[in-house]
Amino acid sequence: MALWRIAAARGLEAVSLREVAVEAGVSIGRVQHYFASKDQMVVFATGYLREQVEQRVLRAVAATPHPHTPLRLLRAILVAMLPLEPESRTGSLVGVAVFIRALNQPELAAKYRQGQSQITAAVAGQIEAAVRHGELRADLDPELEAHLLLALVSGLTSNLLLGHGSPRQALTILDHQLARLEATA
Amino acid sequence: MALWRIAAARGLEAVSLREVAVEAGVSIGRVQHYFASKDQMVVFATGYLREQVEQRVLRAVAATPHPHTPLRLLRAILVAMLPLEPESRTGSLVGVAVFIRALNQPELAAKYRQGQSQITAAVAGQIEAAVRHGELRADLDPELEAHLLLALVSGLTSNLLLGHGSPRQALTILDHQLARLEATA
Repeated sequence: MALWRIAAARGLEAVSLREVAVEAGVSIGRVQHYFASKDQMVVFATGYLREQVEQRVLRAVAATPHPHTPLRLLRAILVAMLPLEPESRTGSLVGVAVFIRALNQPELAAKYRQGQSQITAAVAGQIEAAVRHGELRADLDPELEAHLLLALVSGLTSNLLLGHGSPRQALTILDHQLARLEATA
Repeated sequence: MALWRIAAARGLEAVSLREVAVEAGVSIGRVQHYFASKDQMVVFATGYLREQVEQRVLRAVAATPHPHTPLRLLRAILVAMLPLEPESRTGSLVGVAVFIRALNQPELAAKYRQGQSQITAAVAGQIEAAVRHGELRADLDPELEAHLLLALVSGLTSNLLLGHGSPRQALTILDHQLARLEATA
């Protein structure tokens, strides 16, 4: 997707309707037919970003060895959010671009917060399930642990995007933290 | 500082020598006297950012109740990095602006990694001191825990900048994680 490639390479601020048209090899009129304004492009990019993450999570879940215990699914979800391969790296870069734009646009920031709250609730639900399943400790606060794990993944993502620390190290840190939450630990 | 205010509000890409001159109320010639190019401005902003964080850490350490145990200092350092007040929020925004620019500039990225490595080493040293002091568990891997805590602080910073979660919640999460590392826990 043209919008996607430009946003990942140079940020959303760099994206103009004209550039998207050039990159996509279509006329400006065609692009304008889909996007009346840059804001509409950003909203589209945000929705597409979300879809991509959801699809990556579904693929990661499908690739998880059976049995699909709640803890294994929790790990698959968190790992799918890390920029460990070119495709997820591009997605993370677009995520950074949306983040930057949201810093100056209250409406986009509200959408971003809403998205984060939904992801946090989903991860907290997965933690609760893992507690019920006896995999994670019964004394955990699922919402707090979800916030913590997602903030950790977000910080590891920034590090990976700039090459501070390796993918292997990021996974070691994530697994180290998950092991702390385990019932047997 | 004019450069600082513009970079925090709209990112480093938005900063031109002309704008800095207007915002600072001086002539363009005066600005050019200090900065021959935008890259030099960015290098200056990065150095200034670092100084600001160091000074905030020193103030936080000075404000820490005695005795200044290694664990209390470790917490003061990590808290000083969070955007909990207007000044540190501005600093975090400039940090984001530098991060974005570094994504497309290998040289700046190398500097960023170097800075992160130094911070990680400093935090790991503080963790080691807290272990020796009997405050943190003896079985910790200081470098891994330093990476983890700094990634956590970085993720919490992104959340706070966009208003996802409150400052109180960020501190609760940080303290929760530190409590896990304590020798008595």
